Amino acid sequence: MRIVLDAMGSDDYPVPDVTGALMAAQEWPEDQVILVGQETAIKQTLGDVDTTGVSLEIVAADEVIEMDDEPAWAAREKKGSSMHVGMGLVRDGQADAFVSAGNTGGVLAVATLQTLKRIRRVKRPALAAILPLPAGQFVTLDIGANADCKPEYLVQFAVMGSVYAEAVLGRRNPRVALLSNGEERGKGNQLVKETTKLLEDSNLDFIGNVEPKEAMACSADVVVHDGFSGNIFIKTTEAAASMLNHLIRDEITASPITALGGLLAKPAFKRVAKCVDPFEIGGGPLLGVNGVVIVAHGRSNGRAIKNAIGQARHAVQGGVVEAIRQGVT
Amino acid sequence: MRIVLDAMGSDDYPVPDVTGALMAAQEWPEDQVILVGQETAIKQTLGDVDTTGVSLEIVAADEVIEMDDEPAWAAREKKGSSMHVGMGLVRDGQADAFVSAGNTGGVLAVATLQTLKRIRRVKRPALAAILPLPAGQFVTLDIGANADCKPEYLVQFAVMGSVYAEAVLGRRNPRVALLSNGEERGKGNQLVKETTKLLEDSNLDFIGNVEPKEAMACSADVVVHDGFSGNIFIKTTEAAASMLNHLIRDEITASPITALGGLLAKPAFKRVAKCVDPFEIGGGPLLGVNGVVIVAHGRSNGRAIKNAIGQARHAVQGGVVEAIRQGVT
Repeated sequence: MRIVLDAMGSDDYPVPDVTGALMAAQEWPEDQVILVGQETAIKQTLGDVDTTGVSLEIVAADEVIEMDDEPAWAAREKKGSSMHVGMGLVRDGQADAFVSAGNTGGVLAVATLQTLKRIRRVKRPALAAILPLPAGQFVTLDIGANADCKPEYLVQFAVMGSVYAEAVLGRRNPRVALLSNGEERGKGNQLVKETTKLLEDSNLDFIGNVEPKEAMACSADVVVHDGFSGNIFIKTTEAAASMLNHLIRDEITASPITALGGLLAKPAFKRVAKCVDPFEIGGGPLLGVNGVVIVAHGRSNGRAIKNAIGQARHAVQGGVVEAIRQGVT
Repeated sequence: MRIVLDAMGSDDYPVPDVTGALMAAQEWPEDQVILVGQETAIKQTLGDVDTTGVSLEIVAADEVIEMDDEPAWAAREKKGSSMHVGMGLVRDGQADAFVSAGNTGGVLAVATLQTLKRIRRVKRPALAAILPLPAGQFVTLDIGANADCKPEYLVQFAVMGSVYAEAVLGRRNPRVALLSNGEERGKGNQLVKETTKLLEDSNLDFIGNVEPKEAMACSADVVVHDGFSGNIFIKTTEAAASMLNHLIRDEITASPITALGGLLAKPAFKRVAKCVDPFEIGGGPLLGVNGVVIVAHGRSNGRAIKNAIGQARHAVQGGVVEAIRQGVT
């Protein structure tokens, strides 16, 4: 398998990106990792790391789409970027997947407008995430590619999410739910109500509405929503966890006795952190384009990048793109 | 001041409700608390509690709007309910505020369709919450009264939320923000983008978009959203906090050493719990109707009910209803 990594992706590129690529190449020596980006910067980062026996290739791309670049503009104007070159390799059959921790809007725009393009019949590609929670993992989409959605889009998201849950999480006949403000049928906004009717008529295993609490309890394998409320959902989960984390740390270190308690309880806190660590998954797929594309967090470290490459491997092995081509009608 | 409490409101009515009313009557002896509901049940609950010197009155209402009643139906058919009778007292000037931990949709329907009615020019009443977070408190609305909104509604929510933040939280010239999937101007769904233009032209202190993280950091005094995404926002915050709470408890009790650590750190955990305890606030106001209405959580205990009555006192003292009448144009 050949996986392209955007070396100019993360907030602190290229160090976390190159480090992650190296970790991946070491972990999966049968695969090839292709680093795309500014050659000098990549080579400097690799420095005198011993890369013998490691299948790491560099493909030059001079331009960089930065985090604050306007996505549509960057997709149009920076055609020599690592995103253009990297996804171009996937389009041309020279690689199997593309991974980037860069500007999410940029990845979207370069994928849909310039390189891989939408799969036939897919109305809107969607950005998905796998949430790793104590109760288990589930696929949640769209988390931000489409702020305004129509019922038909959500039905396609449900199909693409099911394909992903089956291929990557190994769920047979995945349970699909709509994120809503109440579980009862009839709750929801206009979009949820109209989508409900369409999903009930589909051949997906549609289980109805779920509230955030039930979603987090893993009561569905695929949770579907428009990109606006989905973005609120995922960012609120992150923000609430981070807020509590800081609050607990502050309160525990406030007195010597509670601080001692915190020290003794440290292994428990470490297990908790691991349980809700987004870097364990590394990245989420952009579903609906002609190729495997994984978007990682801008704040990724090397381990997160390596895990995002792992996601790409699963998606390629699971034949996600072909399954979406077959599934979306 | 005379405050009506729905004795048949909470999930375990009437015990938490009557207990909370008693606590409030003891804490604020200058005010009168009016318990509305089934007289026998209320009297049984009061039992042989000594109520001398406490200003507690009972007004009979035979019907009960249950949690699983369909709101519009219940508002139409159960005209003898504690909600109808209680809000009727406010409408008729015999009381200053109404507090209920009952069926939220029921309170909304009875208020808007049957008793208090909308304030003139208010297009849609909104349900607000005050979120008590480590960084401070802020008003967030709509959290569920209107799943589908138009930009004009959101502008009115902004006005009503500002009135509330000023009257109850004491904020001068409250900062207003729209909850969105990105902070930059231009981010957001169609609703956010169109509302942005209207708020920029208003005389509110509109500071732009906030993401969940900034909202939780109290970067605005009033956070405005449609009732669907607002409901996702608030329920995700609750669900994430509860999930982490359980996870930490499970991991800490998993070994004797971490359990000892947890025991020593207990005072810290107690402070954390108090910091994010929704029962500290007790309830959120239904804004835009002709009277002070506070909706408390169905799971309320006595302390939560007492605090919700405290919220009602603040809202009455702050002249919230009159200020909304003046402010909404």
